[in-house]
Amino acid sequence: MITIDDIYEAGRRIEPFIHKTPLIHSSSLSKATGAEVFIKAENLQKTGAFKVRGAFNKMIGLGADKVITASMGNHAQAVAFAARETGARARIVMPVMVTLVKEEASKAYGAEVILYGDNFRESLEYALSQNEYLFIHPFDDDRIIAGQGTIGLEIMEQTQGIDAVLVPVGGGGLVAGIALAVKAISPQTEVIGVQTESAPSAYRSFYERRLATIPPCPTIADGIAVGRTGDRPFEVIASLVDDMILVKEDSIALSVLLFMERMKLVVEGAGAVPLGALLSHKERFRGKRVALVASGGNIDFTIIDRIVRKGLVTNGRIAVFEVIVHDLPGSLRDLTGIIAAHRANILDVYHNRLAENVPVGKTEVAFTVEARSRENLEELLSSIRAGGFVVKDVGSLPDNGYPRAPDGEGG
Amino acid sequence: MITIDDIYEAGRRIEPFIHKTPLIHSSSLSKATGAEVFIKAENLQKTGAFKVRGAFNKMIGLGADKVITASMGNHAQAVAFAARETGARARIVMPVMVTLVKEEASKAYGAEVILYGDNFRESLEYALSQNEYLFIHPFDDDRIIAGQGTIGLEIMEQTQGIDAVLVPVGGGGLVAGIALAVKAISPQTEVIGVQTESAPSAYRSFYERRLATIPPCPTIADGIAVGRTGDRPFEVIASLVDDMILVKEDSIALSVLLFMERMKLVVEGAGAVPLGALLSHKERFRGKRVALVASGGNIDFTIIDRIVRKGLVTNGRIAVFEVIVHDLPGSLRDLTGIIAAHRANILDVYHNRLAENVPVGKTEVAFTVEARSRENLEELLSSIRAGGFVVKDVGSLPDNGYPRAPDGEGG
Repeated sequence: MITIDDIYEAGRRIEPFIHKTPLIHSSSLSKATGAEVFIKAENLQKTGAFKVRGAFNKMIGLGADKVITASMGNHAQAVAFAARETGARARIVMPVMVTLVKEEASKAYGAEVILYGDNFRESLEYALSQNEYLFIHPFDDDRIIAGQGTIGLEIMEQTQGIDAVLVPVGGGGLVAGIALAVKAISPQTEVIGVQTESAPSAYRSFYERRLATIPPCPTIADGIAVGRTGDRPFEVIASLVDDMILVKEDSIALSVLLFMERMKLVVEGAGAVPLGALLSHKERFRGKRVALVASGGNIDFTIIDRIVRKGLVTNGRIAVFEVIVHDLPGSLRDLTGIIAAHRANILDVYHNRLAENVPVGKTEVAFTVEARSRENLEELLSSIRAGGFVVKDVGSLPDNGYPRAPDGEGG
Repeated sequence: MITIDDIYEAGRRIEPFIHKTPLIHSSSLSKATGAEVFIKAENLQKTGAFKVRGAFNKMIGLGADKVITASMGNHAQAVAFAARETGARARIVMPVMVTLVKEEASKAYGAEVILYGDNFRESLEYALSQNEYLFIHPFDDDRIIAGQGTIGLEIMEQTQGIDAVLVPVGGGGLVAGIALAVKAISPQTEVIGVQTESAPSAYRSFYERRLATIPPCPTIADGIAVGRTGDRPFEVIASLVDDMILVKEDSIALSVLLFMERMKLVVEGAGAVPLGALLSHKERFRGKRVALVASGGNIDFTIIDRIVRKGLVTNGRIAVFEVIVHDLPGSLRDLTGIIAAHRANILDVYHNRLAENVPVGKTEVAFTVEARSRENLEELLSSIRAGGFVVKDVGSLPDNGYPRAPDGEGG
């Protein structure tokens, strides 16, 4: 097992190449949770995630001029970026169906991207077979763990008296490194790993005291959707991590929204799980000084779009409702007049003459409106009912699925 | 006119109450613009905007136990927050139709919110009539200007050799304070004010060398939609500011998106205008060290939703297209089979049998799909055409209007 000295050495090695990210106190999240909340903003790290710390620590001084990895996520960009800065050639293997955004993110740092295989496992096997390239593992590597551990050093240096550090866990490299650093400096500080219910392999392994393999389900926290914790990280987790917490997908989505709304930070699903854990266990952390590791900010904009829309629906700012009206000239004018009087903004109108339970001579009209608030929306619906219309159903916007788990990489 | 000593004094006075916000170097924006780009992240400031600097500097030591202002924006929250922290009572006046989000933002800091008047001007008149309360002006006040100027001190301290500082301008308090600080410390550094084309009162005043009144149009940068620069700020602007730049609304929307995508920062429209100016004048700033003042992050989520959707459409990730098909069983199966083969995700399908120029026996079907990329979308459309279908129109999502200008407050 590596020691605190390896992490100090990593800190000195990577210091010229990375950002020392801010540890930001949040009055708003402190008030919302009852804890004193500090955010370690690794989303502001170079490439948008903590992974560069491990990648630089692995690649500096090794003398490898050709490196390879398989990754669709933050590790890919970290290896690509670290290779460029250290003068190496990087090859990144991704499944053929990866989004162009992910492909371009690595290409932008000068890496060669190879699309190979129908899933992540096939990409990984291909990468491992390329023997003339040094393979950079995303988490099961002492140098990678030591690099990620520098986050723990920084937190301990940036504030005093932290009671608990909450860390996202995928493959386990991040939490292992942080636990090694934090426990060496402040043994009484709790280090707690957080996973999503959709990918609980490290959680299960922690409680069963042996490595479990659990294929991840689709999750908003795709960066930590890993089926099996690394051997080396698990050794550290089993001996140093105090506890593991699982969080629900809805809680992660809410946390991403809160980071944007309250902290003005774009945090990806994986980076938001510590906030989800805190929100779900307020009593446990009440009055304590808690550091949340916001591990990255590389979230697909289609996901942000869904989370923001869902948040707007939850807050009553966007609503969909169906009204049954006479299928006659003037009906819509009466209805839209009521909507206008409440200053709600109509985004969409859809007539459904074939809807069930609608008598001949009437039609169902579905409105999507933007309201000032939930109260404004309720008043609007009351006025429509008072105007003699039947409001049939008040629903929310359709929610589409979360991304498929990449299976095999992550924190 | 105030001096650099007033700003140093303000810095000492407000230091216990505010965040010293990070100055973040951006490799990504530097690469995109050709300049060396630094972001002064005042969106991470307490209350989400720079306004607390001026508010604290005004309120500390004045002994006023009752303060009032009229504002729907960042100034309202700043006064509410500073009042709470300094033990004063705050009253905030807003027009009756303000969104609940804005009302709640000030209430959350313990202020009393009075809804008065149909527009901002009526709210302002009411606030000014309350003589038992000390009125806190958003920008036309020496103490406010000195407080905002502390941003200039911090930039000069956080890095060396900045060639230009780009600052959003509404009422002018922010740019005046920063110009006073920066020019005293580094006279060769350019201080450049930025406004939106929709609210160019300070720009016009700067070039005409006298105060112009121009009612603002609706703008995404509602925080700087001010019809007339303050007298005191204008005196400073006229003598110290090097230049003013106007940016287009589309450029501001793109800048908000780039801040989220590249910097992982939520920046409001007003805070994004300096990036818009840099993007529109790349040649002018090529190779120079440029600091962009991202003045705040309080953007309504309905606006983020529109900007993100627009970005997704621009990048080909979401598209709307209409296909004419035989109105027969199986038609949709053939079409959706092609879409599935390209792994595009159907978000919405809408049959329009009444569309113009559609022969009897055929129907128009409008699809909203999520694609992997613009290339993926083009391939999909080619395959649909190759399958014998007529693709009638490829459009973008409907874009709704920007918020009404508040008229009378801002940077």
